[in-house]
Amino acid sequence: MEDKQTEARENRSQRKGPSDNTIFIGSKPLVNYIRGVMTQFTKWDAKEVMIKSRGKFISKAVDVAEIARRSLEEKEAYVKGINIASESFEADGKRTNISTMDIVLALK
Amino acid sequence: MEDKQTEARENRSQRKGPSDNTIFIGSKPLVNYIRGVMTQFTKWDAKEVMIKSRGKFISKAVDVAEIARRSLEEKEAYVKGINIASESFEADGKRTNISTMDIVLALK
Repeated sequence: MEDKQTEARENRSQRKGPSDNTIFIGSKPLVNYIRGVMTQFTKWDAKEVMIKSRGKFISKAVDVAEIARRSLEEKEAYVKGINIASESFEADGKRTNISTMDIVLALK
Repeated sequence: MEDKQTEARENRSQRKGPSDNTIFIGSKPLVNYIRGVMTQFTKWDAKEVMIKSRGKFISKAVDVAEIARRSLEEKEAYVKGINIASESFEADGKRTNISTMDIVLALK
């Protein structure tokens, strides 16, 4: 289960469906991710959407969350929770850390 | 009081003192801001430090918070709260929004 989730990770923002309420922020245009979040709420009736990001994409994730929240004001969207953490990995024989952020956007 | 705070804003990360527990993230090297946070906790015995950022500096703010938190693990530093918001302003006759983030780092 965990492995399958990791494998599917890169394609998640395209794979739209009722149970897919996580958006991973990457290098595509901002509007793609905003549309992804909006679709979860409006088309699939999600009550919560998780916006995940790492490193330099964290700023973009906050933009996505804020723009989606403002666009969904009539549905009383709000930021339910934000979590930051560090992921450690080995690159070129050196241990490197990258910051991660999860934002949960929800409807009242 | 409010006006004075706004005026002092740009110089805050230099102005070190017991009552100055806010760090504004900008374009200086990462290590400057990490040192600023550490100084608040270790030299001025702050119990909480607020890390403020806007726009593209939000990713950097998360790095500062995470690196400082990990460096202060023996003091049981933790992320007490994170808030995101939007600021609206007029630029070239157009209304523009910028995302903002405040992270409160605290000691247990």
